[in-house]
Amino acid sequence: MGIIVQKFGGSSVANLDRLNLVADHIIKEVENGNKVVVVVSAQGKTTDRLIAEENEITQNANKREHDVLVSTGEQITIAKLAMLLIEKNYKAVSLTGWQIPIITNSEFTNSRIRYINNDTIEEYLNAGNILIVAGFQGIDENGNITTLGRGGSDTTAVALAASLNAERCDIFTDVDGVYTSDPRVIENVKKLDKISYDEMLEMSSMGAKVLHNRCVEIGKKYNVPIYVKSTFEKNSIGTLVSSKNNLEDLEINGVTKDDYISRITIVGLENKIGKTYELFKILSKNLINVDIIIQSFGEHITKDIAFTVKMNDLKKTIKVLEENKNDLGFQEILHSENLSKVSIIGVGIANKPGVAANMFEALYENNINMHMVTTSEIKISVLVDVDKSDLAVQAIHKKFFEK
Amino acid sequence: MGIIVQKFGGSSVANLDRLNLVADHIIKEVENGNKVVVVVSAQGKTTDRLIAEENEITQNANKREHDVLVSTGEQITIAKLAMLLIEKNYKAVSLTGWQIPIITNSEFTNSRIRYINNDTIEEYLNAGNILIVAGFQGIDENGNITTLGRGGSDTTAVALAASLNAERCDIFTDVDGVYTSDPRVIENVKKLDKISYDEMLEMSSMGAKVLHNRCVEIGKKYNVPIYVKSTFEKNSIGTLVSSKNNLEDLEINGVTKDDYISRITIVGLENKIGKTYELFKILSKNLINVDIIIQSFGEHITKDIAFTVKMNDLKKTIKVLEENKNDLGFQEILHSENLSKVSIIGVGIANKPGVAANMFEALYENNINMHMVTTSEIKISVLVDVDKSDLAVQAIHKKFFEK
Repeated sequence: MGIIVQKFGGSSVANLDRLNLVADHIIKEVENGNKVVVVVSAQGKTTDRLIAEENEITQNANKREHDVLVSTGEQITIAKLAMLLIEKNYKAVSLTGWQIPIITNSEFTNSRIRYINNDTIEEYLNAGNILIVAGFQGIDENGNITTLGRGGSDTTAVALAASLNAERCDIFTDVDGVYTSDPRVIENVKKLDKISYDEMLEMSSMGAKVLHNRCVEIGKKYNVPIYVKSTFEKNSIGTLVSSKNNLEDLEINGVTKDDYISRITIVGLENKIGKTYELFKILSKNLINVDIIIQSFGEHITKDIAFTVKMNDLKKTIKVLEENKNDLGFQEILHSENLSKVSIIGVGIANKPGVAANMFEALYENNINMHMVTTSEIKISVLVDVDKSDLAVQAIHKKFFEK
Repeated sequence: MGIIVQKFGGSSVANLDRLNLVADHIIKEVENGNKVVVVVSAQGKTTDRLIAEENEITQNANKREHDVLVSTGEQITIAKLAMLLIEKNYKAVSLTGWQIPIITNSEFTNSRIRYINNDTIEEYLNAGNILIVAGFQGIDENGNITTLGRGGSDTTAVALAASLNAERCDIFTDVDGVYTSDPRVIENVKKLDKISYDEMLEMSSMGAKVLHNRCVEIGKKYNVPIYVKSTFEKNSIGTLVSSKNNLEDLEINGVTKDDYISRITIVGLENKIGKTYELFKILSKNLINVDIIIQSFGEHITKDIAFTVKMNDLKKTIKVLEENKNDLGFQEILHSENLSKVSIIGVGIANKPGVAANMFEALYENNINMHMVTTSEIKISVLVDVDKSDLAVQAIHKKFFEK
């Protein structure tokens, strides 16, 4: 009799009809003889509503109080779901983050989990209860309520699965698994039966927002099998995210895109040790997220560095760079706007030299210009014009999946 | 520099405009050099909304989960009010019931406070913070969230004032104090400057719902001066509820009524020790609340007992009595419906024989029949027909206050 952790997001618990669907998924595992720990988010738009009310009071809310406010959302869901299961004659108990407790650091609105105390959960499980746990929230060592930031409930679920040594963690969502690409862009997307943690990390950082990176990283670290499943299908098999690699399967697992990014090129940066570090430290201090970085080989007195940022960070980035032009010592800044990063992901890439060639061929055949190329062990990304990004994804998908 | 506890109810915190009024009251005390602990309820109709959502799930919710659900209401208010004060450049910190902690017994939905740990509050106060505390909620010794039931936030406020040895507890409400009668019934009501705990207890059990009995009882036990004030008036003096009696003031302090009650008379109950106890034990076991009880002098083999219950308990009461007729051994049950209890309250009553006569005279002059009379040290109550109750209150009020 193993422990199963199930996580249901905001749209899966949005109303009573959906809570009944959720209860069905829970009861199914209970009837199969499993101990079930359920992690839930706030219902539907609850968190958005609370934040809107906060914004009426202040645009710059105290972060501690923000967490006190928004953590009520999950608390409402756990009480309702526990009541519903009890109404259906199952033993169920709700637990908030502080009741478990899930101990985090004190970085309000974006806390990291330090450790989870299993005692309370195990006591309730051993007494035959279904446990309904509030996702997204914890408590710091001074007794303050904290929240985990984006992807918080997924993180709670996988962290609990790791801490409880659960058999698996099922992440229930609107889609029934991880797909080879975005179904809104590609008609013939294929659902993946399994995918490795590393591939999933690349997929989700590429904009395939099925799972948040933080939860995949915890899954990888503690080797928790994660299933992505649909709340709305009775027998969704979903996609298994695990350490098993897929060499015997498809050579690539997905095509993704990330629209509206800009490329900035710093021309003539002094070729001195520490200059690159100094550059990115300045950007980081100004809270600018940099994605791809390419540095020309530094055999000369100066070097060029190109990197990408989100379109809405472009102006700020250029301003920050100009302000530090003298300290950094470079000649000029170039930039290109309205680009999109299109990527293919798969553990096969490093081992199959033909993959990059196939990708580039698909773009060439469709007359799509590549502004930048980067590769890693499991990913190849190219920058294309944003108005060609859908076409690029379709062409690449066709090349690899629709033969 | 003393500690002041201020309590603001649901309608006082219903929206941002009102939260700003509340902030003004708080800041005024802070600027006067006081340490301020604020207790708040859930905003406006929040609790009603949560209970309506609960009722969609089940009509018979698990009480532990009910408390998890409804306690979110106050948590939302404390976060918002703390944010607002911080936005106005005051140091403020919110605390839930479990964060303080306010330790209660485990009677979910209707818990009693066992004790309050002052350490966290005092630490924050000494660091110069305004404390914003969630009313109505606590935590039991097993770490479960509990709620205090009706009047819970008033109880939290006065209990905190007692525990912290506060200078006073200000209960802010829609009205600016305690009145001699209900302003909806009497035109010329008079606000009382002060009233004793005992009188206030009689007033509020009589239907003058300004303060809940539980909070007055705690105030009396720990001698906490309680001020009832208006949120909506800048310089409301309010009414002081304290141990000082008012012998030098009005001989009575208020006229109240309680509509829609019934009188039941048990005729021919066996005049044996224990029979009266047996009767009221059966009623109590069936959750029937009995108010006035009058027993005829028992010099005979049988005795008659009359008592009052709420109209909507009447049928149930008669059914329960009929079912136990053989065990109890009585001859018959009589009952009168549609009665109202009209009472006058004041510490002067016991010392001034003319008071009762004046009250009865007012009723006689208005041709109002009295179906029952009971008196205590500080109260005289009569039962009249419900359709005469407004007239009765007006006549008595006029007799005592409008000379």
